[in-house]
Amino acid sequence: MEQKTVAVIMGSDSDLPVVEKAIKQLRELHIPVEAHVMSAHRTPEAACAFARSARDNGFGAIIAAAGKAAHLAGVLAAHTTLPVIGIPIKSSTLDGLDALLATVQMPGGIPVATVAIDGAQNAALLAAQMLAIGDGALAARLDAMREDMTRAVMEKDRKLQESL
Amino acid sequence: MEQKTVAVIMGSDSDLPVVEKAIKQLRELHIPVEAHVMSAHRTPEAACAFARSARDNGFGAIIAAAGKAAHLAGVLAAHTTLPVIGIPIKSSTLDGLDALLATVQMPGGIPVATVAIDGAQNAALLAAQMLAIGDGALAARLDAMREDMTRAVMEKDRKLQESL
Amino acid sequence: MEQKTVAVIMGSDSDLPVVEKAIKQLRELHIPVEAHVMSAHRTPEAACAFARSARDNGFGAIIAAAGKAAHLAGVLAAHTTLPVIGIPIKSSTLDGLDALLATVQMPGGIPVATVAIDGAQNAALLAAQMLAIGDGALAARLDAMREDMTRAVMEKDRKLQESL
Amino acid sequence: MEQKTVAVIMGSDSDLPVVEKAIKQLRELHIPVEAHVMSAHRTPEAACAFARSARDNGFGAIIAAAGKAAHLAGVLAAHTTLPVIGIPIKSSTLDGLDALLATVQMPGGIPVATVAIDGAQNAALLAAQMLAIGDGALAARLDAMREDMTRAVMEKDRKLQESL
Amino acid sequence: MEQKTVAVIMGSDSDLPVVEKAIKQLRELHIPVEAHVMSAHRTPEAACAFARSARDNGFGAIIAAAGKAAHLAGVLAAHTTLPVIGIPIKSSTLDGLDALLATVQMPGGIPVATVAIDGAQNAALLAAQMLAIGDGALAARLDAMREDMTRAVMEKDRKLQESL
Amino acid sequence: MEQKTVAVIMGSDSDLPVVEKAIKQLRELHIPVEAHVMSAHRTPEAACAFARSARDNGFGAIIAAAGKAAHLAGVLAAHTTLPVIGIPIKSSTLDGLDALLATVQMPGGIPVATVAIDGAQNAALLAAQMLAIGDGALAARLDAMREDMTRAVMEKDRKLQESL
Amino acid sequence: MEQKTVAVIMGSDSDLPVVEKAIKQLRELHIPVEAHVMSAHRTPEAACAFARSARDNGFGAIIAAAGKAAHLAGVLAAHTTLPVIGIPIKSSTLDGLDALLATVQMPGGIPVATVAIDGAQNAALLAAQMLAIGDGALAARLDAMREDMTRAVMEKDRKLQESL
Amino acid sequence: MEQKTVAVIMGSDSDLPVVEKAIKQLRELHIPVEAHVMSAHRTPEAACAFARSARDNGFGAIIAAAGKAAHLAGVLAAHTTLPVIGIPIKSSTLDGLDALLATVQMPGGIPVATVAIDGAQNAALLAAQMLAIGDGALAARLDAMREDMTRAVMEKDRKLQESL
Repeated sequence: MEQKTVAVIMGSDSDLPVVEKAIKQLRELHIPVEAHVMSAHRTPEAACAFARSARDNGFGAIIAAAGKAAHLAGVLAAHTTLPVIGIPIKSSTLDGLDALLATVQMPGGIPVATVAIDGAQNAALLAAQMLAIGDGALAARLDAMREDMTRAVMEKDRKLQESL
Repeated sequence: MEQKTVAVIMGSDSDLPVVEKAIKQLRELHIPVEAHVMSAHRTPEAACAFARSARDNGFGAIIAAAGKAAHLAGVLAAHTTLPVIGIPIKSSTLDGLDALLATVQMPGGIPVATVAIDGAQNAALLAAQMLAIGDGALAARLDAMREDMTRAVMEKDRKLQESL
Repeated sequence: MEQKTVAVIMGSDSDLPVVEKAIKQLRELHIPVEAHVMSAHRTPEAACAFARSARDNGFGAIIAAAGKAAHLAGVLAAHTTLPVIGIPIKSSTLDGLDALLATVQMPGGIPVATVAIDGAQNAALLAAQMLAIGDGALAARLDAMREDMTRAVMEKDRKLQESL
Repeated sequence: MEQKTVAVIMGSDSDLPVVEKAIKQLRELHIPVEAHVMSAHRTPEAACAFARSARDNGFGAIIAAAGKAAHLAGVLAAHTTLPVIGIPIKSSTLDGLDALLATVQMPGGIPVATVAIDGAQNAALLAAQMLAIGDGALAARLDAMREDMTRAVMEKDRKLQESL
Repeated sequence: MEQKTVAVIMGSDSDLPVVEKAIKQLRELHIPVEAHVMSAHRTPEAACAFARSARDNGFGAIIAAAGKAAHLAGVLAAHTTLPVIGIPIKSSTLDGLDALLATVQMPGGIPVATVAIDGAQNAALLAAQMLAIGDGALAARLDAMREDMTRAVMEKDRKLQESL
Repeated sequence: MEQKTVAVIMGSDSDLPVVEKAIKQLRELHIPVEAHVMSAHRTPEAACAFARSARDNGFGAIIAAAGKAAHLAGVLAAHTTLPVIGIPIKSSTLDGLDALLATVQMPGGIPVATVAIDGAQNAALLAAQMLAIGDGALAARLDAMREDMTRAVMEKDRKLQESL
Repeated sequence: MEQKTVAVIMGSDSDLPVVEKAIKQLRELHIPVEAHVMSAHRTPEAACAFARSARDNGFGAIIAAAGKAAHLAGVLAAHTTLPVIGIPIKSSTLDGLDALLATVQMPGGIPVATVAIDGAQNAALLAAQMLAIGDGALAARLDAMREDMTRAVMEKDRKLQESL
Repeated sequence: MEQKTVAVIMGSDSDLPVVEKAIKQLRELHIPVEAHVMSAHRTPEAACAFARSARDNGFGAIIAAAGKAAHLAGVLAAHTTLPVIGIPIKSSTLDGLDALLATVQMPGGIPVATVAIDGAQNAALLAAQMLAIGDGALAARLDAMREDMTRAVMEKDRKLQESL
């Protein structure tokens, strides 16, 4: 299987400080990534066209980040059968609950794989897990990363013992 | 000004029992109405095409009803500068709060005029009020209807006095 | 049709930092605007009198902004059949959810066109869209503004490509 | 001090099944009661006129029950300095949270004494407690009623002991 | 009728910055006030004893302010038939929603007159309105204060006209 | 250590259908149980007296169940240093969220061990776990019960395999 | 790439009426499925062992359905780097909000792809989309199914036109 | 009965500023405490192994603190019949409501004794109350501490009297 790219679409460039954690995580896993500012509401045609041609253009999964009445992930998902991962972005009111519900509560037929509010790193890991279903080397990298994570927590526990 | 039509779009035919109150109210006010089942997620192209050509096709306002992650009103609003009125529909979970937030919390630039959860009659009245800005006869019908409503409440008060 | 004015009513002068975005947006669209501090609770008579005479005084729509138990939009709407647009204002507690529910959940018969919490710009655009139903030149200005918005997002996307 | 009457105002006659518990409780306490259907939105003038003249007409307190965007108590309170007690009514969506927030979150200057969602009996008791500040006989009736209530719970405890 | 005192009880001295607005407002209305730090949980016996003897000690109403699982108003109300006014205090989490629900959702038989989250001024006004039921001079002071408030809003409207 | 009794206090006899699961679970574990209807608001003196003398009367833990503004667990906890377990009861509005917050959000110094809304069985198990800290035989019974539970789930899994 | 199996794990057999929609949808797409009742709390060892060996046992994705404090998806995800899809199940209180938050708000490092409350069909489609990244034939089946869905909505719109 | 140790487990070392209040409170009560950083998601095996052997290793109760989809307390509780106390930690979104629901809404069979959001001191007191069921000396220390707390509030009341 050739190497698939992951698209990272954000509804506004103000989402970049959150979203760049996804880009960084994907790069660390040596997964090709292409990022765009595209809005379900302000550039709907560009967004829909991107989703419609994404599979043919070599994408394996799409990550979509948006706040408030976050329609971006759902709108992209309506135009592709690639898996779409939604990151609800916390904005100035309601603490991200609006974006969470607008992303996760999709009607039957059009799923969006929703991660935590502002959960950009997990969106990237989820995209990697999807690609790793058919890519043993990537799966191995994910397993190794998980072990590093375990060791890091155990190291923190050791430090806590010293400090108490 | 020629008479404008109001479009009533519902995301699913299961929304019809709520939405038909809007259709009925518009007809009582002698406003032409055209109703459709169109989904932001399942028939996105038809929905967007409808919105893009709505002003040229003689529509004056669009009412959009949807439940859960209710993207329909916002998606239509992204493709027209006609006013779009959103009715959040209560579905099997969360009592309509998901649809309310997904409809009302629109980002800057693309407004949706949101009414109460399941508020189909008010959506119709709001559309009528918009058309009545430039239509004195319709404004007069709305005023008369308001007076009927006032009389009906006063009549109920009279009946209450008798029953107590 | 003669040019209608849009009223912008705020419940407290402390709402002005949010509300002035609506005033600015209306002026950019060359729509006459008249702004007032009027309270449903502290100056109820002035508020009701304003609403009752608004249509005769040349207003085409009323924008009402209030926080907490935000009754202003509903109270104005009870005294006019002009369209009333409600802006729920975020105050010191509950993140604006109280104002949102108190504005949007209107009973049958008296609609309020509710926009997002602190969504002043969208309230102005919605008022403009209402006036544009019968005003082709204003509709053209709204379309042009929408295209500018699209171009601005596309430009941000181009800048993102350079920065990555 | 002459005996004051308590007004019980409901926004809709559909609220009567809840509100009649308040009427019944006031009568059991031998407090004169006058009930009305009056709406902040559908009969605003009647409601405001009632409130403005309530003190002169011999009322001591006003109970107002309304659902959804429950403005009734606040609107009445804006037209009188008599104490106004608000009963948020549970309607078909949101379980009464909308009515609770629209009733209790009043801005500074215009208080509404809010009781529990559908808490009609407590609204009546609260009105009675207010009248009893200057009415020792009524205070004694309230104290006696409280003792009855205590005995009733203790009796239920005794029955529970037998049943276990 | 002799002049009654209003008790202002706070669950913690950390509530004083909010609660002192109630004390100040009562003093401006020339109503005697007695303030205490008493906790439903940490000094339950003192709190209950205070409530039980409050009517005999010349109090006309009790204001109780508490945050989180705010039991103070309800516990005081369980020991007196004087009206008890609850101020839910916003604390470090949940924005005061916990205190609001714990104060307002009282079971049948024991009402608490609840005001807005952190609504200390309104708690004082509500207490004053209760005392004014049988005190025409106080009612007149409340009416005058209301008119001042109206004038202040109208003055702000005039200033807004100059600034625009 | 002598065998301790667990008290099960409910705020209203209407809570019995939920609470009796706790009584049943305690009896199955051979733990002595004493149940009462006692209200923080309607029989506050009885409730406080019970809590104050509970340790001396041989109780090891107190389970308290209440709905709405559920003060019962907190009020009992204020009068004893025995562990108090709170069961928030779902009532007719707000789905038990009011009781949950009123039970769990206790201020520093007076803990309430809160279980799930209507979680009566878990309240009993938690009381048993507390008594089992110093009672190896009871701990063994709890371990055996846990193993039965595991086997029951595994048996359900086996049945599912047959049915698919 | 050999054909992967999708695991469907439910926390309780009472979840089967919701979860069987996922099983049915996977079978319609000719995807091998294996279903189990396994609980994060009652059979934690079986659940963890299943997750740890899932990739080696030929699974491509895991769907986990649970209600209330829904830990199942997160616990499985902690023991595998296969993608885990969480279905929050609505239970008797809080309308599934508890399960939604307990499923979606995963900490950094361990993602769960969350779908709507009771969104079993979408969980199956999401699993299919993941497998289809490297399986053109399955992608074609998903595209065909999407087109059927579009036609079904358009047919409903045609029927609506006839009925109006 | 020999002296039991209390375990304090936190899901992340970023929880230490909250959790250390529990450690400090336990030490003030002369209760042995052992603290660890262990994660239900990142070090699940270590966490489960700790819980399984905790009773044999001399622990009497386990306190578990975690934020977001807080599974830690529930996962530990699944592996022991010792009482497990859960502290929901407030994180960057949703004000801790996610952690509260993910901790408290445990299914039947596996209780978690939940305290307030960030309620670390109360978690320690609750653990102490559990140990004190069979330890009269510790019960006496808890009673003395409670009396100190009462005196501190009364002292604050005295200071308030001076300052007013």
